[in-house]
Amino acid sequence: MISFECDYNNGAHPKVLQHLLETNSKQSLTYGFDEWSDSAKEKIRNVCNAPEAEIYFLSGGTQTNMTVIDGMLQSYEAVISAKTGHINIHEAGAVEFTGHKVIDLPAHDGKMSAKELSDYMNWFVNDESTEHLAQPGMVYITYPTEYGTIYSAEEISNIYKVCKEHGLHLFIDGARMGYGIMSLKSDIDLKFIASHCDVFYIGGTKVGALCGEAVVFPNKAPKHFFTTIKQHGALMAKGRLIGIQFDALFTDNLYLDISKHAIEMAEKMKQLFAKKGYKFFLDSPTNQQFVIVPNDKMIELEQQVMFTHWEPYDAKNFVCRFVTSWATTDEDLKILSEIT
Amino acid sequence: MISFECDYNNGAHPKVLQHLLETNSKQSLTYGFDEWSDSAKEKIRNVCNAPEAEIYFLSGGTQTNMTVIDGMLQSYEAVISAKTGHINIHEAGAVEFTGHKVIDLPAHDGKMSAKELSDYMNWFVNDESTEHLAQPGMVYITYPTEYGTIYSAEEISNIYKVCKEHGLHLFIDGARMGYGIMSLKSDIDLKFIASHCDVFYIGGTKVGALCGEAVVFPNKAPKHFFTTIKQHGALMAKGRLIGIQFDALFTDNLYLDISKHAIEMAEKMKQLFAKKGYKFFLDSPTNQQFVIVPNDKMIELEQQVMFTHWEPYDAKNFVCRFVTSWATTDEDLKILSEIT
Amino acid sequence: MISFECDYNNGAHPKVLQHLLETNSKQSLTYGFDEWSDSAKEKIRNVCNAPEAEIYFLSGGTQTNMTVIDGMLQSYEAVISAKTGHINIHEAGAVEFTGHKVIDLPAHDGKMSAKELSDYMNWFVNDESTEHLAQPGMVYITYPTEYGTIYSAEEISNIYKVCKEHGLHLFIDGARMGYGIMSLKSDIDLKFIASHCDVFYIGGTKVGALCGEAVVFPNKAPKHFFTTIKQHGALMAKGRLIGIQFDALFTDNLYLDISKHAIEMAEKMKQLFAKKGYKFFLDSPTNQQFVIVPNDKMIELEQQVMFTHWEPYDAKNFVCRFVTSWATTDEDLKILSEIT
Amino acid sequence: MISFECDYNNGAHPKVLQHLLETNSKQSLTYGFDEWSDSAKEKIRNVCNAPEAEIYFLSGGTQTNMTVIDGMLQSYEAVISAKTGHINIHEAGAVEFTGHKVIDLPAHDGKMSAKELSDYMNWFVNDESTEHLAQPGMVYITYPTEYGTIYSAEEISNIYKVCKEHGLHLFIDGARMGYGIMSLKSDIDLKFIASHCDVFYIGGTKVGALCGEAVVFPNKAPKHFFTTIKQHGALMAKGRLIGIQFDALFTDNLYLDISKHAIEMAEKMKQLFAKKGYKFFLDSPTNQQFVIVPNDKMIELEQQVMFTHWEPYDAKNFVCRFVTSWATTDEDLKILSEIT
Repeated sequence: MISFECDYNNGAHPKVLQHLLETNSKQSLTYGFDEWSDSAKEKIRNVCNAPEAEIYFLSGGTQTNMTVIDGMLQSYEAVISAKTGHINIHEAGAVEFTGHKVIDLPAHDGKMSAKELSDYMNWFVNDESTEHLAQPGMVYITYPTEYGTIYSAEEISNIYKVCKEHGLHLFIDGARMGYGIMSLKSDIDLKFIASHCDVFYIGGTKVGALCGEAVVFPNKAPKHFFTTIKQHGALMAKGRLIGIQFDALFTDNLYLDISKHAIEMAEKMKQLFAKKGYKFFLDSPTNQQFVIVPNDKMIELEQQVMFTHWEPYDAKNFVCRFVTSWATTDEDLKILSEIT
Repeated sequence: MISFECDYNNGAHPKVLQHLLETNSKQSLTYGFDEWSDSAKEKIRNVCNAPEAEIYFLSGGTQTNMTVIDGMLQSYEAVISAKTGHINIHEAGAVEFTGHKVIDLPAHDGKMSAKELSDYMNWFVNDESTEHLAQPGMVYITYPTEYGTIYSAEEISNIYKVCKEHGLHLFIDGARMGYGIMSLKSDIDLKFIASHCDVFYIGGTKVGALCGEAVVFPNKAPKHFFTTIKQHGALMAKGRLIGIQFDALFTDNLYLDISKHAIEMAEKMKQLFAKKGYKFFLDSPTNQQFVIVPNDKMIELEQQVMFTHWEPYDAKNFVCRFVTSWATTDEDLKILSEIT
Repeated sequence: MISFECDYNNGAHPKVLQHLLETNSKQSLTYGFDEWSDSAKEKIRNVCNAPEAEIYFLSGGTQTNMTVIDGMLQSYEAVISAKTGHINIHEAGAVEFTGHKVIDLPAHDGKMSAKELSDYMNWFVNDESTEHLAQPGMVYITYPTEYGTIYSAEEISNIYKVCKEHGLHLFIDGARMGYGIMSLKSDIDLKFIASHCDVFYIGGTKVGALCGEAVVFPNKAPKHFFTTIKQHGALMAKGRLIGIQFDALFTDNLYLDISKHAIEMAEKMKQLFAKKGYKFFLDSPTNQQFVIVPNDKMIELEQQVMFTHWEPYDAKNFVCRFVTSWATTDEDLKILSEIT
Repeated sequence: MISFECDYNNGAHPKVLQHLLETNSKQSLTYGFDEWSDSAKEKIRNVCNAPEAEIYFLSGGTQTNMTVIDGMLQSYEAVISAKTGHINIHEAGAVEFTGHKVIDLPAHDGKMSAKELSDYMNWFVNDESTEHLAQPGMVYITYPTEYGTIYSAEEISNIYKVCKEHGLHLFIDGARMGYGIMSLKSDIDLKFIASHCDVFYIGGTKVGALCGEAVVFPNKAPKHFFTTIKQHGALMAKGRLIGIQFDALFTDNLYLDISKHAIEMAEKMKQLFAKKGYKFFLDSPTNQQFVIVPNDKMIELEQQVMFTHWEPYDAKNFVCRFVTSWATTDEDLKILSEIT
């Protein structure tokens, strides 16, 4: 059965696998000190225009979020997220498990508003009982968001400005970074990201790798961050596994090229649904599309294609998520077109 | 200067202090195994009609909340609270510090709705990604709430019913329990509380004691709860300090009598403000009153009386909290009347 | 029955209780911002010759240890303790509960050796896998120790020197500080302590108070330590309760005077046991004495006096701990003399 | 340069990589619900003779230890380990990070003694202050140990017996499980392991995989263990990555065959060193060998072969660890022979 359920239900991009194959017989240093990790880091520094960046490879998104957030925050600090942020819902309380409160602000199609962030911080610093509250230490946003939407350059700049006013770190979760940057609506690139936050990660798992996220500190990583990674169970003994994959992904622009392909497939899919009269739950310019499907049609579709049942829209319709990826083919879309 | 800032800005009720005095020269067992703690527990069991209840004395509210919640939850579980719940705001992230997420539901004048709790749980159990979410394990409500409001017997029964349907513990934070029960609007007593939740605490700090909260498990405490208390830094070496105080508070109905006094003072204070044309932010039937005060009047009042600056009401007015307690006198109200 | 079980089985010293009594009817600021807390802090600063010291009052020893240690360490750091240190055994894993490893070094009658600390740190910094280990961030010692022994001025100086060489905080747990300083063998005072560590606490619970420990940062407290206290459930709403007690204890040298009394009683008790031919488990110059008692004699004694069963000495004898305090009387010793 | 530094400095065994290659183009369910994970689990159940076993795939050793230990312990419980246990030293305090104390018992060439475990537990249950101590909830042993030694069937049986007497879980860390079982000295197999503990894991990272450890609960996993995995950041989105590798490793006895090869290489290496007159730090029957090397010879060797500098033996000699693996070749040994 074809699947539009998510962007991590395939193996690796062939070039990624190829690089694992061609390097397999070589011995290497462990824990990420291998030559391919070094090479991948250098390539990422270049594309980010961040020659001093410190880079670490972790294996998955939740792990990365909990390790980065706990690693950068003091233990009395909290992280601010949009209410729909991944760390606030779908990570089983992993951030709280490390001891930190997630303070949620309203989400607007998945996005935080710089104005509301500023209002919150102004309330916070002026409240009589400020010292009785968890101290905000970081702002967490996702690019693109859990709803496929993206921040404009201006929106990110404004959020970062508020962060700097209040001494907050800005962390951008880029589990689907490529799909955001290659969106037709995007006005930013990795250079912009690297110069407008304190830490971000470039997601590999959802963009062509078997596993792996590249955490980038454009300036400086927290002291003993390597130990923090180990302490969180996030240190790969064979660090090369992730280094090799990112080395392939950042060779010849592969990461962004395959992201672009996913966007092209998503645009075609949007047109396909629109033509048949489906409405969208919101306007997503990336690879996740949220389609309003009548309940009986949804049951029929389930027999032929996999997708995510997001949430009820009303008594008669359901919001269904259809996701493209680097691996989506025109053939997949053709079948989807025939059955929707 | 007179103060209506809170209900814990006095020393102890004279009878409480008297009991400390008259027992001072006796040696005792430590860690709560003294005779007065035993006596206090027995008196609380009686008034709660809970002969099997297990009772522990802790020193303060945040400490009690974090210890009870962490002690009853499995480490993968979260606690559900109204958005304005004390644990969700004014406890510096103490619950998250113990590793648990606080899931917030809407607050209605400080109260959780049984219907919204039920809706949330129904969504939770039916969601595709349920196992990726923090598992709700407990519901936390305050009686009275942070806004001075109280649940009716029916409302608590309904919440407890939802809890039992979904295997959730119900925990009632009674930091101001006496002031809730003695409210003119209350239709419950300690017997009702003890038979409609899994654990609750009777606040001493705000109702006549120097410190101390009595945690009551009407049926059974979690295994090794004594060790859990120690592990949370909440075990008093001289447990007698709290036991003696509760022994006094639960002799001759002192706890409820002094609570009743605070309510009488609060009712007089309400009339006093109402007569002068002040409006209230909400209708509170307990000892905390939230009065809307013009900004310039507020600045004037600050010179003569202490109160809490709660939050801005609009551009020209502020919500100010005035609190009575067991120690409030008619003289205090007379002065308040003259200056407002 | 008379009791030599511990030094916290009495009420408060009469002058402490008297101060609670005479201040009881006054209203005050909360959370430790009351006048008596201010006064007590000033008196402690004076006696410590530490005019810039930041002081916080917490309610008990385990709570103080976990809050200070967690508050001063980065989350990837561990604390080094003698194997017999209180935090390593009798605190139910409270330090680990806050996420930090306790690294144990050998104990010599309860004391850590500066040499062994230095050796450990030299091993640590030279080990190939240093970054895979919890990073030592603090050294924890007790004065006096759990075995009643005390460090000399030279020993503390040497330990502090190693700490400074390796960037470690030194924390001195003074749950029984008075009994250490007033020991006939002691060559230090509070001024010495305050200038030879980064943080220490002066125990009140075991030296005349109902509860309370005074945490002293001779130079600077960690940022937002007030919030950290709240987050650990250790903030007293009626902070005055502890402030008033320390205000009394540090008036007219009361704290040290009553400590001296306990030492005098301990010296008499030692002679009493020695005269009757008992041997000691170790040579303690403070208020805790560890007496080797034949098993059958121990069973006989239990009928007439309370003490602690420390540990088996050999098949026929047991180590029994007898403790004096500020409240021990000559009459108590007379009875003890008759029955031993 | 040839390397005997560790057993995870190679890529994957060719058959493991081959299986990744041949499955790469197929779509699958995520989070470990793919067909290859199912197949691998079934094969492991068969070889363990544990048809009801619940199996989870995690990515690395420290992660597995912290997740299993935290997942099985109540929050007031501690884990008992030999002093040299991996969780007690080389995991950066990851277990303590999850809130649990590691109680250490003496290590005898890396092994815990059933007798000493029994003695400890008998002391624990009889101690007067038992409820003030972290409650032991689990025993952790490694097979083989960090020193390459292995427990006999009788030794494991005895430890497991003590565990059952005291209600402790037994957890066997099998990061190098294959190298233990295939040791010439081993008298156990996976069936024995599966019937003599409550949980264990079969290490893949060090035995032919790129990453991955198979956690086996022979009877029942803790409730919501999937959520616990997610909460610890240990859930792989593309769970297939590990499932496919274990599917290969447990096809046609590959896992044990390649382990056997490593043992054969280790035996040859031992003879090689012995012939040249080197002494061993201890007698290891598995793939890790601890050789006593004169300091000047060590410096010479470093130029031509990689190994681990374990610890100083005495002023003139160093303990050096040489490790074989599934990937070690006769050619490697030939070179080693020439230079030692």
